[in-house]
Amino acid sequence: MAQINTTVGDLSGNRDKIIDYMNRAKKLDADVVAFTELAVTGYPPEDLVLKPQFVKDNLRTLKVITKATEGITAVVGFVDSKDHIYNAAAVISNCKLMHVYHKMLLPNYGVFDEYRYFKPGKHYPIIAVKGVNLGINVCEDIWFADGPTRTQALAGAEVIVNINGSPYHKGKGKERLLMLATRARTNNVYVVYVNAVGGQDELVFDGHSMILGPNGKLLIAGKQFEEELITYDIKLPGPSRSGVNMTSEQLLDEHKEYIDSVIISGQPTLNKKILPRRRVVKPYSITAEVYHALVIGTRDYVMKTGFKSAVIGLSGGIDSSLVAAIACAAIGKENVFGVFMPSQYSSNESCKDAFVLAENLGMKILNVPIHQPFDSYLTTMHSVFANTKQDVTEENLQARIRGNILMALSNKFGWLVLTTGNKSEMSTGYATLYGDMAGGFAVIKDVPKTMVYDVSKYINRIAGKTIIPRRVLTKAPTAELRPNQKDSDSLPIYPVLDPILKAYVEEDREFGEMLKMGFDRKTVERVIRLVDSSEYKRRQAPPGIKITPRSLGKDRRFPITNRYKSF
Amino acid sequence: MAQINTTVGDLSGNRDKIIDYMNRAKKLDADVVAFTELAVTGYPPEDLVLKPQFVKDNLRTLKVITKATEGITAVVGFVDSKDHIYNAAAVISNCKLMHVYHKMLLPNYGVFDEYRYFKPGKHYPIIAVKGVNLGINVCEDIWFADGPTRTQALAGAEVIVNINGSPYHKGKGKERLLMLATRARTNNVYVVYVNAVGGQDELVFDGHSMILGPNGKLLIAGKQFEEELITYDIKLPGPSRSGVNMTSEQLLDEHKEYIDSVIISGQPTLNKKILPRRRVVKPYSITAEVYHALVIGTRDYVMKTGFKSAVIGLSGGIDSSLVAAIACAAIGKENVFGVFMPSQYSSNESCKDAFVLAENLGMKILNVPIHQPFDSYLTTMHSVFANTKQDVTEENLQARIRGNILMALSNKFGWLVLTTGNKSEMSTGYATLYGDMAGGFAVIKDVPKTMVYDVSKYINRIAGKTIIPRRVLTKAPTAELRPNQKDSDSLPIYPVLDPILKAYVEEDREFGEMLKMGFDRKTVERVIRLVDSSEYKRRQAPPGIKITPRSLGKDRRFPITNRYKSF
Repeated sequence: MAQINTTVGDLSGNRDKIIDYMNRAKKLDADVVAFTELAVTGYPPEDLVLKPQFVKDNLRTLKVITKATEGITAVVGFVDSKDHIYNAAAVISNCKLMHVYHKMLLPNYGVFDEYRYFKPGKHYPIIAVKGVNLGINVCEDIWFADGPTRTQALAGAEVIVNINGSPYHKGKGKERLLMLATRARTNNVYVVYVNAVGGQDELVFDGHSMILGPNGKLLIAGKQFEEELITYDIKLPGPSRSGVNMTSEQLLDEHKEYIDSVIISGQPTLNKKILPRRRVVKPYSITAEVYHALVIGTRDYVMKTGFKSAVIGLSGGIDSSLVAAIACAAIGKENVFGVFMPSQYSSNESCKDAFVLAENLGMKILNVPIHQPFDSYLTTMHSVFANTKQDVTEENLQARIRGNILMALSNKFGWLVLTTGNKSEMSTGYATLYGDMAGGFAVIKDVPKTMVYDVSKYINRIAGKTIIPRRVLTKAPTAELRPNQKDSDSLPIYPVLDPILKAYVEEDREFGEMLKMGFDRKTVERVIRLVDSSEYKRRQAPPGIKITPRSLGKDRRFPITNRYKSF
Repeated sequence: MAQINTTVGDLSGNRDKIIDYMNRAKKLDADVVAFTELAVTGYPPEDLVLKPQFVKDNLRTLKVITKATEGITAVVGFVDSKDHIYNAAAVISNCKLMHVYHKMLLPNYGVFDEYRYFKPGKHYPIIAVKGVNLGINVCEDIWFADGPTRTQALAGAEVIVNINGSPYHKGKGKERLLMLATRARTNNVYVVYVNAVGGQDELVFDGHSMILGPNGKLLIAGKQFEEELITYDIKLPGPSRSGVNMTSEQLLDEHKEYIDSVIISGQPTLNKKILPRRRVVKPYSITAEVYHALVIGTRDYVMKTGFKSAVIGLSGGIDSSLVAAIACAAIGKENVFGVFMPSQYSSNESCKDAFVLAENLGMKILNVPIHQPFDSYLTTMHSVFANTKQDVTEENLQARIRGNILMALSNKFGWLVLTTGNKSEMSTGYATLYGDMAGGFAVIKDVPKTMVYDVSKYINRIAGKTIIPRRVLTKAPTAELRPNQKDSDSLPIYPVLDPILKAYVEEDREFGEMLKMGFDRKTVERVIRLVDSSEYKRRQAPPGIKITPRSLGKDRRFPITNRYKSF
């Protein structure tokens, strides 16, 4: 299982990586090496696949890869093009394209748009490699009990090779394992689950490729969030297949004309080298998992878009502290620049906390006070604002000056601006558009504030010392845009807010249901009002890393013009 | 045909409007009144329909509407919910729900995501109203020759009622008319095509509802971009149906079990009032069409999101002049505020042109120089920028100061900021993120610069006097962010740029193909590089009105992380 980190559009880079991993697998004397979903193009390629030139280039790339398959059989994801285009898996062996499988079940929910691009496949190939029957399928195909896996097993597949670009969200590993074990056991097949790793815009792929035995037992599992070639010897012929529930012969018969059979080579090689023994890699805890997703998501966004360094506005608060710690882990402390931008409302504590954090991380920090630009705006707007009261305008101005300074540093020095807003803020619109929302990548956009604390504490724990200063973890959150401001002036406290947001934004709960869950009516009304009225801000937010089942990007597509009232 | 302007999520508002139009139709003694696609929820409701509470509320709203159907039969779009949800048309008559049709062909390309939400329907109802057989279907259903229209016609439908939320793009009317005429003629049926009007975020619906005879002749067509109740007396029984090409009986037989038949009332009423005679409304020219789409799109975005007024940065250039003219037409000159924000690089001509434009339009204009904030930023950044050269940083700073000022005015006075970037700029990234891109709505985001001139001239023409000053139409475009700057320093001239952009962005042409089209290789390479590298900017742009077949919003979904090189 070649658990690789591809880059969307990087056809030559992906090709080289695939060939490299193929060669490594050959050295180990593997019979079959399976790559990830759309490995040739990177996943998800989105509207690139609507470009005929891109699809052709991807086909050419597959041809080059095919020429490198002497002595091995490889399963490689690519975009096939016939009458239409397909999310496909090529079975290539000894320099020949032996078969192409077209993904049958196309996800078109959440972050997925596969019906926008692909037609579903119709054929269930059974590939005999050295006497062993493989059933190939792609990602979503294995999630459904009555999907291709079942038909392929009934048609004689002993091993299902399922290639994936399965985006991470916290806790998904458990769901996946349970599903794969069920699929293996009920179909009496080995299941080889290969998943991608790496970040691609909003998505992170978490790897953790695995093989399950026909009894549903986990035989091997790779690392999470890291590239790896994972080897395993499947002993075949396996257990008697008489145990398969054959009441579904009808199903098989019905699909008969769609079942292809390809024999790659006749007999099993008996005296072959034994592949290196590997152990099951234990998955991370939820908090650790989220941390690693954020690190790899940040690293890949920075690197794959061609940046080398990043800049972060450090306020002395917990959000920017966490983002700085993640950025240092992702791209190296020497490439991360902090900027403290005090105004008249900034406290000494904030200043101290920001500088101590930078010191703890070993990163550079600049001090750029915003008093002067702020005063000059007030002077400039003086006559226009005559006879008006001070309000959120002046608060937003400060945030926007900071945004401008960060963008100026980005323009001047080529640093990518990382924004520091969390999911609780982004959901309620407690953020300034073009102010603290200004930047290229929103690292913790999908991390609720309560989880921001968990991940921050985790960072201190694994460092074995204080990285994020203790005071940052304990002081009351504040935007410091007016005297004595606290987040809790504008929002319910986060332990109250976050569960309401989960119910409303992630779970689409009805208003009445939320009241029954025990939430206070006025508070729920207030939160719903905030979420509904801030859609326009989210629409202009930078992308950020999905770590929950429903993030605030492609995952949630709300109209801005929307008069629906749920209470 | 009730060609109405609904608002997404405004269930009670849409309900009242539907009942109002129904009552008007009753007064005219119409037998049947057809509304638009998803009229109850507004179209497109996007992820709102994933909320169970929203779907329930929409069903409740349909019930209330049903109670108002005494003496008339209405076809009303709503979201049906059974095992799954459906894009549906209710046939309600005499206070009863008679039948529900589920849309069969779900668009999932371009701006559409219907597979994300809906399951395709399976049944072809034939509804007999006063002895006339109606076949109901929805939007996309009629676009395909072998779609439901054919089956319904073969099953005996004499009139096809097709309800739509069909987004406008320039020239779509012609395609539509040709398609509808073909559908009517080949199936020997009347086609009643009802389309929505109004703006919804990026989309504008252009109305122009029509009825075509079985010979394909256009019998009646409504206005474009305006609400209207369009009446027509269809004389039935129509021509003999023996002319129908029945070689497709097989098709009909195959679908037999899915063809429902509902009889609403038995006999035709012979002595009824004749509906008012209407004429075919001639469609606008392309330029006029685009102008009206921009006006209604702007008006509806402002009004439906609850704003009353708008603010525009006036530079004295053509883009901001056009946006100001559109805004005045959309929401009234008294509600539009211009701001001229000169820097040291602004010319006297620009100042004069901005003020003359405002005077011509009769709108207010403020003068807010940006010298002071600009100087204060430079002072603030002085030590950080020591030993660096002046570059795009300082240009962007000016644009961002202007963005901040507009946003401050928006925050202080509740004015919606309209941005002024055109499609040529947005495609090439010739715009400053958080600078001139800052605002709630990007009026001409999908209008190429060359068309900006056409529409501007059209405005002067229909006004019968100079609105947009002559010099604005003739001077060389400039951003005035450094001395003697011209757009043509950074971009190919627009008559060269726009056709390349059309080929690359709208038509997905291959690189080689573009060279064969006669474009200069270096220029094409430069344009492709600009388009590909500015995806991150577009991702954070405000929504704007779609007027071309492929706009730069939901219509074009490109990865930011993308290393594909097409040359």
